[in-house]
Amino acid sequence: MWGGRFASGPAAVMEAINASIDFDKKLYTQDIRGSLAHSAMLAETGIISAEDQKKIADGLNTILSEIEEGRFTFSRKLEDIHMNIEARLAELIGPAAGRLHTARSRNDQVAVDFRLWVKEELIRTREALRALIEAFVTRAEEHAATVMPGFTHLQTAQPVTFGHHCMAYVEMFGRDLSRVNDAIERMDESPLGAAALAGTGFPIDRHRTAKSLGFREPTRNSLDSVSDRDFALEFLSLASICAMHLSRLAEEIVIWSTPQFGFIRLSDSFSTGSSIMPQKKNPDAAELVRAKTGRINGDLIALLTVMKGLPLSYSKDMQEDKETVFDAAEALDLAIAAMTGMISDMEVQKAAMKKAAGSGYSTATDLADWLVREAGLPFRDAHHATGRAVALAETKKVGLEKLTLDELQGINPAITNAIFDVLSVDASVRSRASFGGTAPQEVRKQIRYWKKRLKKA
Amino acid sequence: MWGGRFASGPAAVMEAINASIDFDKKLYTQDIRGSLAHSAMLAETGIISAEDQKKIADGLNTILSEIEEGRFTFSRKLEDIHMNIEARLAELIGPAAGRLHTARSRNDQVAVDFRLWVKEELIRTREALRALIEAFVTRAEEHAATVMPGFTHLQTAQPVTFGHHCMAYVEMFGRDLSRVNDAIERMDESPLGAAALAGTGFPIDRHRTAKSLGFREPTRNSLDSVSDRDFALEFLSLASICAMHLSRLAEEIVIWSTPQFGFIRLSDSFSTGSSIMPQKKNPDAAELVRAKTGRINGDLIALLTVMKGLPLSYSKDMQEDKETVFDAAEALDLAIAAMTGMISDMEVQKAAMKKAAGSGYSTATDLADWLVREAGLPFRDAHHATGRAVALAETKKVGLEKLTLDELQGINPAITNAIFDVLSVDASVRSRASFGGTAPQEVRKQIRYWKKRLKKA
Amino acid sequence: MWGGRFASGPAAVMEAINASIDFDKKLYTQDIRGSLAHSAMLAETGIISAEDQKKIADGLNTILSEIEEGRFTFSRKLEDIHMNIEARLAELIGPAAGRLHTARSRNDQVAVDFRLWVKEELIRTREALRALIEAFVTRAEEHAATVMPGFTHLQTAQPVTFGHHCMAYVEMFGRDLSRVNDAIERMDESPLGAAALAGTGFPIDRHRTAKSLGFREPTRNSLDSVSDRDFALEFLSLASICAMHLSRLAEEIVIWSTPQFGFIRLSDSFSTGSSIMPQKKNPDAAELVRAKTGRINGDLIALLTVMKGLPLSYSKDMQEDKETVFDAAEALDLAIAAMTGMISDMEVQKAAMKKAAGSGYSTATDLADWLVREAGLPFRDAHHATGRAVALAETKKVGLEKLTLDELQGINPAITNAIFDVLSVDASVRSRASFGGTAPQEVRKQIRYWKKRLKKA
Amino acid sequence: MWGGRFASGPAAVMEAINASIDFDKKLYTQDIRGSLAHSAMLAETGIISAEDQKKIADGLNTILSEIEEGRFTFSRKLEDIHMNIEARLAELIGPAAGRLHTARSRNDQVAVDFRLWVKEELIRTREALRALIEAFVTRAEEHAATVMPGFTHLQTAQPVTFGHHCMAYVEMFGRDLSRVNDAIERMDESPLGAAALAGTGFPIDRHRTAKSLGFREPTRNSLDSVSDRDFALEFLSLASICAMHLSRLAEEIVIWSTPQFGFIRLSDSFSTGSSIMPQKKNPDAAELVRAKTGRINGDLIALLTVMKGLPLSYSKDMQEDKETVFDAAEALDLAIAAMTGMISDMEVQKAAMKKAAGSGYSTATDLADWLVREAGLPFRDAHHATGRAVALAETKKVGLEKLTLDELQGINPAITNAIFDVLSVDASVRSRASFGGTAPQEVRKQIRYWKKRLKKA
Repeated sequence: MWGGRFASGPAAVMEAINASIDFDKKLYTQDIRGSLAHSAMLAETGIISAEDQKKIADGLNTILSEIEEGRFTFSRKLEDIHMNIEARLAELIGPAAGRLHTARSRNDQVAVDFRLWVKEELIRTREALRALIEAFVTRAEEHAATVMPGFTHLQTAQPVTFGHHCMAYVEMFGRDLSRVNDAIERMDESPLGAAALAGTGFPIDRHRTAKSLGFREPTRNSLDSVSDRDFALEFLSLASICAMHLSRLAEEIVIWSTPQFGFIRLSDSFSTGSSIMPQKKNPDAAELVRAKTGRINGDLIALLTVMKGLPLSYSKDMQEDKETVFDAAEALDLAIAAMTGMISDMEVQKAAMKKAAGSGYSTATDLADWLVREAGLPFRDAHHATGRAVALAETKKVGLEKLTLDELQGINPAITNAIFDVLSVDASVRSRASFGGTAPQEVRKQIRYWKKRLKKA
Repeated sequence: MWGGRFASGPAAVMEAINASIDFDKKLYTQDIRGSLAHSAMLAETGIISAEDQKKIADGLNTILSEIEEGRFTFSRKLEDIHMNIEARLAELIGPAAGRLHTARSRNDQVAVDFRLWVKEELIRTREALRALIEAFVTRAEEHAATVMPGFTHLQTAQPVTFGHHCMAYVEMFGRDLSRVNDAIERMDESPLGAAALAGTGFPIDRHRTAKSLGFREPTRNSLDSVSDRDFALEFLSLASICAMHLSRLAEEIVIWSTPQFGFIRLSDSFSTGSSIMPQKKNPDAAELVRAKTGRINGDLIALLTVMKGLPLSYSKDMQEDKETVFDAAEALDLAIAAMTGMISDMEVQKAAMKKAAGSGYSTATDLADWLVREAGLPFRDAHHATGRAVALAETKKVGLEKLTLDELQGINPAITNAIFDVLSVDASVRSRASFGGTAPQEVRKQIRYWKKRLKKA
Repeated sequence: MWGGRFASGPAAVMEAINASIDFDKKLYTQDIRGSLAHSAMLAETGIISAEDQKKIADGLNTILSEIEEGRFTFSRKLEDIHMNIEARLAELIGPAAGRLHTARSRNDQVAVDFRLWVKEELIRTREALRALIEAFVTRAEEHAATVMPGFTHLQTAQPVTFGHHCMAYVEMFGRDLSRVNDAIERMDESPLGAAALAGTGFPIDRHRTAKSLGFREPTRNSLDSVSDRDFALEFLSLASICAMHLSRLAEEIVIWSTPQFGFIRLSDSFSTGSSIMPQKKNPDAAELVRAKTGRINGDLIALLTVMKGLPLSYSKDMQEDKETVFDAAEALDLAIAAMTGMISDMEVQKAAMKKAAGSGYSTATDLADWLVREAGLPFRDAHHATGRAVALAETKKVGLEKLTLDELQGINPAITNAIFDVLSVDASVRSRASFGGTAPQEVRKQIRYWKKRLKKA
Repeated sequence: MWGGRFASGPAAVMEAINASIDFDKKLYTQDIRGSLAHSAMLAETGIISAEDQKKIADGLNTILSEIEEGRFTFSRKLEDIHMNIEARLAELIGPAAGRLHTARSRNDQVAVDFRLWVKEELIRTREALRALIEAFVTRAEEHAATVMPGFTHLQTAQPVTFGHHCMAYVEMFGRDLSRVNDAIERMDESPLGAAALAGTGFPIDRHRTAKSLGFREPTRNSLDSVSDRDFALEFLSLASICAMHLSRLAEEIVIWSTPQFGFIRLSDSFSTGSSIMPQKKNPDAAELVRAKTGRINGDLIALLTVMKGLPLSYSKDMQEDKETVFDAAEALDLAIAAMTGMISDMEVQKAAMKKAAGSGYSTATDLADWLVREAGLPFRDAHHATGRAVALAETKKVGLEKLTLDELQGINPAITNAIFDVLSVDASVRSRASFGGTAPQEVRKQIRYWKKRLKKA
């Protein structure tokens, strides 16, 4: 009747689908902090006695120790972390335990617990992103003048510096960092005291509990307080964008590690071997980081889908909020940390980068720009002349800089010997000194900007 | 340097991101079955000795017992289930353990383990869906003539029978069942023997191992064998569509359980109370089923995203395949079982359904149809006349059947007393006897069809 | 060979997959504005002559008129909006047109066009959200004391006011508004001058073009400038969360419009009839708003998936960025506008709301709270006593307020006649005056807060 | 009041959100076919007169011509394709037009139109997939013995043949083909005659209309008939998996086209140049195919989300079904056709492939296997010995085959001169002749299998 695995009938199925203790026990510190703040406020406002409050606080602290020391027995019958703790509190201190739940509901209790956890995760993410950005700034400084091919469509486009490439990631993770800060600012409100959905008739002080839990202020609408999960969705959104950045970096690491590219060597710490092929050294960590994009996007879609079309205020559907956020948080933390390690540890193969930078006619644009600047051609004509020079070099199987002046003048008579100054990759890179460009001095300027900004934040 | 939680440096981060043992230990029976089949074949083809094969088989069976009895220590250092078992086998039987890995790689080993697991899950899903369909057929039989309002846009449209409504879900879950069967048929191929990616030079017999593992035949391309995860994606796709069906049913249960509708009463087994509101009886199980759509869609997107753009053959990204599938499988199994329970247990409030069916001018279409059939009006004109009748009834605050013949003839003189025969909900329902229609005899015909089909399958 | 519809061979398939003019022509004003700003700067810095700049500007303004008056012929052969305009400019002004492309690439050109468009859409969204919030504040003010049932799990929980319910949506859309503002702030940088990816050797002034296009400043890294689509993803993320809010509201409107609930009546403007059922009045607009969640989530996933794993800097994959954003923007604008209309126009059925608020033992929590407050019971005991009172009332098929004092004292002897003051829905609502609670004076306080905040922003 | 773009008030917003004619006009042939079949049946069953039926058929055929010749004016006021055609029919033939709608509703009309369209698209996809598979089989036959490196983790693993690699894609697209066939089989049922949701009292013949529209049979439940969109979701699911396969192929094409790999050269037909870099030849078509994964996944999520939690039977949300399917269908058709072209046209650089196949110690597994087979070592020991040989070769910067016999015997004394026969890439490939392995004769066997299978299907 109940399908294969649920032979034991309705009670077992219901317990299995309903209980959240297997995952929400992760919120035990937040739950206890919330209860301590709530009970302190209840005593201050005279809703419960100081004596009861003392018992409650002592009991909660005992429970905290029991959980941290692994002496607490979680029960699925008691459904969730709130009831597990409350039941134990009643065992420890008797009837006074019953007073803790005055002017509070599981609806605002879980809202405050989960919000505290997400806020802490946002702060963890902020620190992790700063470490990653610092790792990139450090590598950028070492390699502000290291030449490599810049790609578009994964085809050689123009020479750039590796430092400049690193600083592109600094911009990307810098935006992630700024999204984290905005998210913290927006969600820094305490739902405690919203009770089931309508507020309460007890003379509670919500500003007091907000403050003691480290929130800026209390939320302004009790219905919204228990039905809002924007803070979780905003975390998942920013995590998805950040994971996308990480996946681009991971893809580059995988490609750059091939024997064909050979631009970098990962440290052994972040590589693995093969059970059948003795010669392999695989960029497993980068591949795993790349894959985390999948689960984080999945977590985002999961919660957006759960919340779609739910009437206010609380529906049990919302119990599905936590696993998606815990899963994405773990994946993101791990991916950022692994990437920070890989970037710090990897060996940059400067010779391979430079060789590749000089192939593929990467300075063709410099030739075209010279024709515009020095010979006064409209860009479109210069582009066309350069195309002919590339075709000629391809036929001769040489680089552009190996064409003779005669050959170049055959394409456009205005060309002079000065052209050979712009056809080297170093000259090319040095010349691109527009704001944000790849010239080493420009890269160093942006490094200084970021060092200052990181110090400030 | 490593971000908050990874204070211990690269090794710890790498172990944390790389190890899969925490979740792939779920594959222990599949892994051991695969190894037993592989070693038996190696002995039969003379690649290893019968003696070694005996030792391997005994060792593997010992390990199986150790795991099932909780006496096995899993190690993260050994990364995955394959290496955990292999290392233990070496402890138990010495050098012969090393021969098990002949003509095999972790790439085809994990492919076969995971495929076996997914096949078993598909079979579990098939059984669970059959139980759910049977529950609906049973309720449909009881209520083949129970009248309720049929809705479009959640507005009363026309009377239908509750049995007919149940049979709509039978069709939906019947399609899910048929998708499961197709998926099993398509994925019923053994990748074992593909080795790392290129096949092997050992004279193995892949048809033999395929057969002993219960697969129809071996896969036809070794590269594809280790890089294919279609079977997992096809499971996730059909699970998403099935979850969508379950969410529609869950939504109806939630709405029907409101005091405003009152069409059903859930059994206490599938309801819960409130920590603050003593009077509440909440349809938690239905809400949780509805929410499972989110995580299953999320799991599907996760794996589709992971697989996007991966070059052949195996990349470590693919290690992210298992948790998504395990998660979706658990959610789906649970949701189907909970729904089977709810459908079987719920009390149908026939009086409330009937009362609602008769309100909202639900037989207006019958009036229009009568005008077409008996008075020869084009449908569009009949529709218009009926609109006027509804407006009149609304003004008088009565049902259509309470308008007088005079009033009706004022709208269209062709109307006779016979009209009152079609304006009752029972008459309306009885009349809709087109194939697949809501008339009780038609509903019973489809019940017979499904009983026969379920017996056959 | 080419599959059904592409009988004409590679050229036709390539044109069909490659050309973006069908959708990027939407960017014509942005493209022309970008070119005007770029050419003005080129002239100011002496890179092109004032005379050429004059020709370019005149030509571009002519093209702008041609497009706006429908006299411009777009060509798929010219691939995109940039080449369509450039080709026409060459026709109009000859060789000077070729100078416009100096120190610029299609990569930074499309980046600036698209960023301008997204910024304008964010500003449109901001205005639309303000209008929606204002509509809710207006309704909240009218109904600050209108009593309705507050639901959890769609079961009657406690009475609330309709004004309070409206203000919950104000908080939700207020967070959306704040996300829009943050997104504008973060993306307010001009990529123009990044050229293909490396910057340029021409002495351009990027601060000048940034300023003339209304951006705060230029981007700081040229590689990042052409490969960044965060601004589009951030728009899609905030649109998804906003769409989720809209879907919740839409769901409530659909449910509240059923004959069973009857809490509101939509205006005819936002309802439709049926082609077969003359009596229907369907909440189509609300259903369509609810459905928009799907396509907006889909658009978000689409672009996140496109960007996954792309190496820097520009890849053609990124051409898929625009249709997703255009589609989501149109859906969001439409959904917010439709909802603003529905909220402003709908009739609130106060009597139906009040009647429902009083049923379902909605004041049971008030009884429990009274027992805590006045009789000193621990909340858990009060909850238990109230449960007994509800059971008794259910047996007698009456409301809690219809139990006699005797009966209530049978449950708990501490109960006095004062209890009847808290068992009415009006008293219940008035009592919940905690910060953010549902009491009318508290709702009015939050209305004042929002009016002030809206004026300021 | 109405937000920026909807200055004209409710009516304009409602028309904009409600009208579907802009996209559902694509269904005009399906709509007319459905009406022709319906009216023929109405006449056959005597529900309408033969004369009326003649007028209706003539009118519909006139409309068909008008639309195909561009002489038909679609009107948003008339909302959708059904009403546009019906209104025109009334203009053409007068009152008889009103009889067409007898025993039918827009709910079953749109269901039949859309199902016909999706079935035709599935058939198109089937043909397109066959063409792509044939293109691969042709290339596989040419290159059954062309050696290239087989990769795992994008690191050189073992030599394989390019023909074998092609046949891996044949398996992948072959599964897609089989999913298409299953989908057609499952959805081949006609919903026509379900009417609004409950069936009809008119004596219609649903088997007759099913047959004349080319469906196997009518659907069995009228409620399900109008609320089912599984056929659309199943198309989107299989399209997502197919798009994932295409994205993997596209990724390989992009990587193989880099100067660093140089394994293939795309034809000019499927490449483009750069507006700023004259030397570029970019694999744009492959990148665009890779990107289509995003929009197709997005379309799948969109419709899954739309359908989540909709009560039976029809809700207006379902109007959002068509654009997602049309969009995914166009993207998929285009991507398959472009890939078929690229595969057929591309030049395979055999020399570059062979050179890469021989580097990276790709035959290390062959050495290990030899030690197992000829020297009787357990695989794990052989793996270890080979690891030492690779390390030695790396130190000497030579390939494995350049180590001397002395050096190899220093690692394991059992090694003989015969070892050099297994260390060449050709020998390695030839040896892997297990079923499904990379040996040319095995690849040719699978080519024969597929040629036969394609002929049959």
